[in-house]
Amino acid sequence: MKIIGEKINGTRKRVAQAITERNADFIKELAQKQAEAGAAWLDVNAGTHPDREADDLIWLVETVQAVVDTPLCLDSANPHALAAAITAVNKTPMINSISAEPERIEGILPLVAEHGCQVIALAMAAKKIPETVEGRVVVIEELIEKTRSAGVPDKNVYVDPLAMTISTNIQSAIIVCDTIRAIHEVYPEFHFTMGLSNISFGLPARSYINRAFLTLAMAAGLDSAILDPLDRELQATILAAQLVLGQDRHCLKYTRAYRAGVFSSS
Amino acid sequence: MKIIGEKINGTRKRVAQAITERNADFIKELAQKQAEAGAAWLDVNAGTHPDREADDLIWLVETVQAVVDTPLCLDSANPHALAAAITAVNKTPMINSISAEPERIEGILPLVAEHGCQVIALAMAAKKIPETVEGRVVVIEELIEKTRSAGVPDKNVYVDPLAMTISTNIQSAIIVCDTIRAIHEVYPEFHFTMGLSNISFGLPARSYINRAFLTLAMAAGLDSAILDPLDRELQATILAAQLVLGQDRHCLKYTRAYRAGVFSSS
Repeated sequence: MKIIGEKINGTRKRVAQAITERNADFIKELAQKQAEAGAAWLDVNAGTHPDREADDLIWLVETVQAVVDTPLCLDSANPHALAAAITAVNKTPMINSISAEPERIEGILPLVAEHGCQVIALAMAAKKIPETVEGRVVVIEELIEKTRSAGVPDKNVYVDPLAMTISTNIQSAIIVCDTIRAIHEVYPEFHFTMGLSNISFGLPARSYINRAFLTLAMAAGLDSAILDPLDRELQATILAAQLVLGQDRHCLKYTRAYRAGVFSSS
Repeated sequence: MKIIGEKINGTRKRVAQAITERNADFIKELAQKQAEAGAAWLDVNAGTHPDREADDLIWLVETVQAVVDTPLCLDSANPHALAAAITAVNKTPMINSISAEPERIEGILPLVAEHGCQVIALAMAAKKIPETVEGRVVVIEELIEKTRSAGVPDKNVYVDPLAMTISTNIQSAIIVCDTIRAIHEVYPEFHFTMGLSNISFGLPARSYINRAFLTLAMAAGLDSAILDPLDRELQATILAAQLVLGQDRHCLKYTRAYRAGVFSSS
């Protein structure tokens, strides 16, 4: 299970402020803590000021790279900002994200292919997320056709089935899990990732819902997630889910993480 | 998801002491708290003194019934003690348990049939628990044949697939979930129950493992469990799992339990 650390995100107020003020210490601390907590990538999102995004994203990349060598996940829908930031990275980054919308395919997929990046592919077409498993599978297969014809290896693609809010559709989590299973069966080389927290939007005590959802999605085949690696309860949930799913030989990852203080008894 | 409250168990030291001393207040408090926490049944186990078990079990039954009207789950392998305790209950009890061992079938199943009890059926034959899903299914099908020929309705049988310790077999949780799925598909009227905690025996921070396992088992079809209903984290896990599995229309059970203080944000 690979974690994409979500904390350096310019849509969050304090991060936006740090970017505006060029407060490098604040960003560096977020980078170091997430790297220490085991993030496989650090997401960097500079917010959505079209006139500033490229400069801001390059500053984020350079600031983070000054303290950690964890690969980055460049998070933008803006091809110009992504093209600029790719020139600043030390390691091949992940790109977050493409969808089946033509402007994102045309603007971003060539960058992914040219630089050998991993890429998150959202199950979304024309600003719409299909309601059913069948609908999501159709969109994902469209995306797979595009990434393959662009020459992106299957193993570089992280499909995001898109978790919708369960309070408006009680089947939301099931739809995600069934979509993962359906794609995984036919396209075993592709990875899966997603943000967790949208599932529990509008409900109380969200962390229990997020953790139950994460456990079920891992059983379906989810092998990456965009989350807060400093959340010890989530880390424990991931390690425990791997363990019960038979993915932790001799229980070593679980017991080592416990001994290292990643989580404690609750 | 129906909970069998596990706390009144004479194999626990303090409960054994309370039974020996006829400390009714101690037992009554355990009964009331578990009933308030929503247990569907209260397990009563008088320990394993062959000469005293029947008397002790009757005392437990009468003590618990003095304060709550929750149905009981009479927990014994001793047909004599069970036959005696059945005469003392106010409501039809569940019997915990039969297995495919001849002495338990012959001694206990007629009582279950005669009194219209629910019964827990362990996937165990001749003191052995099969290692594989196929082996467990064979034993469970043997049991199903016995309960059916004794005239016990399918819906009164709670199959316990028996969770073995994951630290000695990393496939233990998967075997349980696959066994539940295999039986549920062919015999949809049967229920499933089990104790959780054996899965994490010998490992640290066991509650995370128990909760991940419970979530996966519920996805497979587990609809009952023998656990501590006062464990708020477990209650939250059950409610969250029901929610993400699409079993909580309009999220009412989850939000009501939250408002009632069954669990809090974590």
